[in-house]
Amino acid sequence: MIAGSHNTSAVSAAIEHGGSLAIAERLFPGAPRPWIDLSTGINPHAYPLPAFSAAAFTRLPEPGDITRLEQVALAAYGAPSGTPIVAAPGTQVLISLLPRLLGSRQVAILGPTYAEHAAGWQGVGADVRLVAGLEAAAGADVVVLVNPNNPDGRLVPPAQLAGFAATLAAKGGLLLVDEAFADLEGKGATIAPFLPVPGVLVLRSFGKTYGLAGVRLGFAMGDEALVDALRAAMGPWAVAGPALEAGLAALADEGWRRQMTLRLESEAARLDAAMERLGLKIVGGTRLYRLGEAEGAPALFKRLGKAGILVRRFSDQPRRLRLGLPADEAGWQRLESA
Amino acid sequence: MIAGSHNTSAVSAAIEHGGSLAIAERLFPGAPRPWIDLSTGINPHAYPLPAFSAAAFTRLPEPGDITRLEQVALAAYGAPSGTPIVAAPGTQVLISLLPRLLGSRQVAILGPTYAEHAAGWQGVGADVRLVAGLEAAAGADVVVLVNPNNPDGRLVPPAQLAGFAATLAAKGGLLLVDEAFADLEGKGATIAPFLPVPGVLVLRSFGKTYGLAGVRLGFAMGDEALVDALRAAMGPWAVAGPALEAGLAALADEGWRRQMTLRLESEAARLDAAMERLGLKIVGGTRLYRLGEAEGAPALFKRLGKAGILVRRFSDQPRRLRLGLPADEAGWQRLESA
Repeated sequence: MIAGSHNTSAVSAAIEHGGSLAIAERLFPGAPRPWIDLSTGINPHAYPLPAFSAAAFTRLPEPGDITRLEQVALAAYGAPSGTPIVAAPGTQVLISLLPRLLGSRQVAILGPTYAEHAAGWQGVGADVRLVAGLEAAAGADVVVLVNPNNPDGRLVPPAQLAGFAATLAAKGGLLLVDEAFADLEGKGATIAPFLPVPGVLVLRSFGKTYGLAGVRLGFAMGDEALVDALRAAMGPWAVAGPALEAGLAALADEGWRRQMTLRLESEAARLDAAMERLGLKIVGGTRLYRLGEAEGAPALFKRLGKAGILVRRFSDQPRRLRLGLPADEAGWQRLESA
Repeated sequence: MIAGSHNTSAVSAAIEHGGSLAIAERLFPGAPRPWIDLSTGINPHAYPLPAFSAAAFTRLPEPGDITRLEQVALAAYGAPSGTPIVAAPGTQVLISLLPRLLGSRQVAILGPTYAEHAAGWQGVGADVRLVAGLEAAAGADVVVLVNPNNPDGRLVPPAQLAGFAATLAAKGGLLLVDEAFADLEGKGATIAPFLPVPGVLVLRSFGKTYGLAGVRLGFAMGDEALVDALRAAMGPWAVAGPALEAGLAALADEGWRRQMTLRLESEAARLDAAMERLGLKIVGGTRLYRLGEAEGAPALFKRLGKAGILVRRFSDQPRRLRLGLPADEAGWQRLESA
């Protein structure tokens, strides 16, 4: 029935993600509760939810309000006003949709990284290579990188990316920059000020920075044809009312972001110290998660799990564990005494 | 950059929809407030919102909870358990996505009807015909109908649809049945009990029946390959936490649906009487909206607008107006004395 489509639900189902307590409870049924969930890169200090209007739940979002949200997002992300941008119910939808809009391509992904990128392209039959750096991406017509990278925090300087993109675009190619973890890393961590650049599409994630992953909000900005195609593929009301109202409040709040950047910098340092005490060598990360390495990582994963502390492991990198930030002092103390 | 894609954002932007008070205020700047918005088919008596958990906003929805929501939806809609089903952030996403997954086709749409169906298919360059009935759809490989239809309430008996679908499927075709307004019309209004039927995809909308259009929730069920393709195109977390929790509560509540069906039956009768007093002949509808016809419909649209009452007009059917139900007695009295 579907010409040229490949079913990826089986692939997706098999991808390991952080954040599933259901899986944690199956792995460690006897662990003390509540779970300390450090398996995601979601900010544990959520932006204070606005008092939602009744209309946020009962009425369709007004198209004009979505446009306003997109403009507030451009300003928050440091992109020039006028840059094409579209809001979506989370960044994941954009990651899954793009390969279906562009079709099968020669794709190079700077990896290891967030696994849904490869899954999306493999799902449409694309030829996907994981490469270590931009120089190894030659020949690809779609180049994907998460910047700063998840899980290791590797940052390709945006100016270098913009130059690379120009070469790629001249051949009709696309550079997809997933900046899911760029918000709290300072202005040098984003390509947004260079936009719009033809052939560059930037993804930004709302839920991680603001600790509101459940509302589902994300953005794609940059290349106009791609932004338009994504908007058309999702239709006019993909973003929910609560996401709209939370987004309008939080994205406009530069003071909160500034304070949070400082707070998380200090918490990330405390996390590094805790991980080192557990025998992990810190090899990277961002202010929202740290990546540690140790021969004994698989054993440490189990030890923490049995203590009710869920962290992120990687089936393809068994010596590594990624830890997010505890939400409160009780969580810190359980981690520090584990 | 995008082979075979056609930009439909301009088309979509031009489609008139109900429910935009921003447009109403531009048209009738001096109208008395608050607006009585009768321009949608959304139930004005919203399902009581559950007390959302904090996790609904802060955490990613658990995949197992989405599966549970889908199973509750199957039961609520009267489809056999085991029928392939996928939840989405509203039905509109599904309507916009399907043409992009299936590509250009010969499409017949039973019309006039909800305009986004035609826009979606035209957006991928499909050959789209509006036809008056199934018999006129011969030769098409995708047949779309809204059942019961919006705005006229026309219902093609589901048994007849199932037979038609079998013929269509034998040629590799697809029957898309948008049952956005079927929930409160009784068991005879849905093809769900016949599912799964190869080549039949049924769309169900949560927001209209439960008066919660802002949470964004809808479902596609039926043909397994299409359900899988839609799931893959949206990825694992397209549905927001509040939609998940509201859906789980409301879809399981058969008593509420039974009472609401009776309540809206009586309110629809009151609406018919009010519309007839305004000079409209009732030509169809469902329990959530009524369609009226009169030579003077354009003048009546203006008269109501100046009185702060927004109703739905149709640029291609100027003699018709569609009215939804007032939310409260004050709204009824403003309509009845307009």
